[in-house]
Amino acid sequence: MAMRTRLTEAFGIRHPIVLAPMDPASGGALAAAVSAAGGLGLIGCGYGNRELLESEFAKAGNQRVGCGFITWSMANDPVLLDMALAHKPAAMMLSFADPAPFAEKVRAAGVPLICQVHSLEHARRALDAGADVLVAQGTDAGGHGLTTRGTITLVPSVVDMVARERPEVLVLAAGGIADGRGIAAALMLGADGALLGTRFWATQEALIHPSAKARVLAATGDETVRTSVYDIVRNRAWPAAYTGRLMRNRFIETWHGREDELRGLAAEEREKVEAADRSGDHDVSNVTVGEAIGLVRDLPPAGALVERLVAETAAQLASVSRTLSAA
Amino acid sequence: MAMRTRLTEAFGIRHPIVLAPMDPASGGALAAAVSAAGGLGLIGCGYGNRELLESEFAKAGNQRVGCGFITWSMANDPVLLDMALAHKPAAMMLSFADPAPFAEKVRAAGVPLICQVHSLEHARRALDAGADVLVAQGTDAGGHGLTTRGTITLVPSVVDMVARERPEVLVLAAGGIADGRGIAAALMLGADGALLGTRFWATQEALIHPSAKARVLAATGDETVRTSVYDIVRNRAWPAAYTGRLMRNRFIETWHGREDELRGLAAEEREKVEAADRSGDHDVSNVTVGEAIGLVRDLPPAGALVERLVAETAAQLASVSRTLSAA
Ligand SMILES: Cc1cc2nc3c(=O)[nH]c(=O)nc-3n(C[C@H](O)[C@H](O)[C@H](O)COP(=O)(O)O)c2cc1C
Ligand SMILES: Cc1cc2nc3c(=O)[nH]c(=O)nc-3n(C[C@H](O)[C@H](O)[C@H](O)COP(=O)(O)O)c2cc1C
Repeated sequence: MAMRTRLTEAFGIRHPIVLAPMDPASGGALAAAVSAAGGLGLIGCGYGNRELLESEFAKAGNQRVGCGFITWSMANDPVLLDMALAHKPAAMMLSFADPAPFAEKVRAAGVPLICQVHSLEHARRALDAGADVLVAQGTDAGGHGLTTRGTITLVPSVVDMVARERPEVLVLAAGGIADGRGIAAALMLGADGALLGTRFWATQEALIHPSAKARVLAATGDETVRTSVYDIVRNRAWPAAYTGRLMRNRFIETWHGREDELRGLAAEEREKVEAADRSGDHDVSNVTVGEAIGLVRDLPPAGALVERLVAETAAQLASVSRTLSAA
Repeated sequence: MAMRTRLTEAFGIRHPIVLAPMDPASGGALAAAVSAAGGLGLIGCGYGNRELLESEFAKAGNQRVGCGFITWSMANDPVLLDMALAHKPAAMMLSFADPAPFAEKVRAAGVPLICQVHSLEHARRALDAGADVLVAQGTDAGGHGLTTRGTITLVPSVVDMVARERPEVLVLAAGGIADGRGIAAALMLGADGALLGTRFWATQEALIHPSAKARVLAATGDETVRTSVYDIVRNRAWPAAYTGRLMRNRFIETWHGREDELRGLAAEEREKVEAADRSGDHDVSNVTVGEAIGLVRDLPPAGALVERLVAETAAQLASVSRTLSAA
């Protein structure tokens, strides 16, 4: 089965399904598995680390994968962008800052530029910078973002802006999409495909501690919250307004709302959090996932998951069409 | 054209489109117009006011309409529920509190019970109370709600819970749905139909000041925020965790984040807000709408809007199916 959209045509892939460049979940093995199954895998180059970048690209082997950066952090060591572009990635995704300062370099390398946006204001900025693809990320998403918009309204709003101003640009829906129903909904909202984070986080290949994955399998979906407490304790200089969506745990219950106090104790608390990262104590270490955890009930290999998503999407489209045409 | 789903079958309507019982927008004329066009109109009985309840039901004339209450407020004068049930409404919608204390009375009157839910925890409570329909409302919605869930994840999660536990119960999607793309997406997410507030707020019949409607037409969709400042100044005893989604304005910029101070000055500020309500000064008076304002560009009569929504939904379903089957 194949599912053709403008995205699959533009990227020469079989399915309009993109792996989010999650730091640290989306390593080379996960990205390669998604691409091998007919989607597009993006390595999470995240905050930027030269050695990790090289080793994860190496793990992707000969598979055609792209990658993504947390732009304001990569800007502290822009050589990272050259290093990534040297791998001739299938796409370069820039998130969480104005892409303009880096767009020309990406274009000059002949690499498609994907920009993650969280509002119409961001969408305009990305169009101005010459983006080839916009990822419209709603606040329902796992990881960092804004609270301005949810997926259900941001996607059609961005689609309308693109149609008016640069109709050749593609739009992906992101945030809360974890099964064929979500992918079918994304297509109905006008997107050319979907970018999934949380759903691929819960796969065999994701570089995540098994005890974190186990917590997610037990969740209903009501358990996430947007907070800055881990950015404070880990000393990440996120621009104002960005928060991360995570699963509630004891650390968040303790510190959310007491951010100033936490700033004073950050070094001390950081040690505890880093120890918990190593031991897999997720009462203290973060579990960074979105509302979509309520739709996640297993930990399949990523390739099998892509196939399942495609089959579910086709089945849902057929089932709804059948019901309505019976009218 | 007709669009059959389990909802249209159960209620004997032509389209799976329900008018949200918005206080004060959804008066009898708006509800009647939606029902006359083949949807289901619900009068917004809101906080509850005996005279308004009777006069708005009178304005609906012979059209088959339902109604909805802000449950914790109606509980202060439960005779309101008897008065509404005496009109043999097409449905009774209870929002924003445990429906259990009132469910038996609604059932005894032979009226279908619709419960608005904002989390899986709420969905379970509503199923336990014997609801016939759940409205899964995401935080993207206009008006009151929680921040726990967005529409894109809450709808399929509620659909799964219902399928496991009481598959005869219907599910409506609410929050951020304002055009045929949104309705088609709601159906793909597994809903039996959609409940729209903000989109119907921007119609000829809605009981809203023209200057508020004009503001919404000029918006991009990035301008809303969840806040409690108007509940404080108007002395509405909303249970903790509920906030309202509104369009940002000068009053919100002034008071959001300074809630304790506002509590001290509430009487004084209330006079200003009530004067602004009358004069249509929406720098001070609230404009209660959701993120869907970015998709609203006109103020049609509600009946014409229903027809447009149905045509758009059918066109979007056909267009996506065509693209994919070309694969
Ligand atoms: C664990 C995790 C880490 C993430 N890290 C990044 C990142 O480094 N760069 C980025 O652009 N987006 C990152 N994101 C956000 C994703 O790009 C995407 O918007 C999001 O996962 C989509 O929502 P979903 O999680 O509901 O699928 C991350 C998301 C998660 C869950
Ligand atoms: C102006 C306004 C008033 C509302 N009043 C009520 C109400 O009195 N009772 C209720 O159950 N819901 C109320 N709601 C919420 C709606 O039932 C519904 O969940 C919401 O409008 C759906 O999201 P949307 O506005 O994006 O369509 C109100 C919404 C708006 C916009």
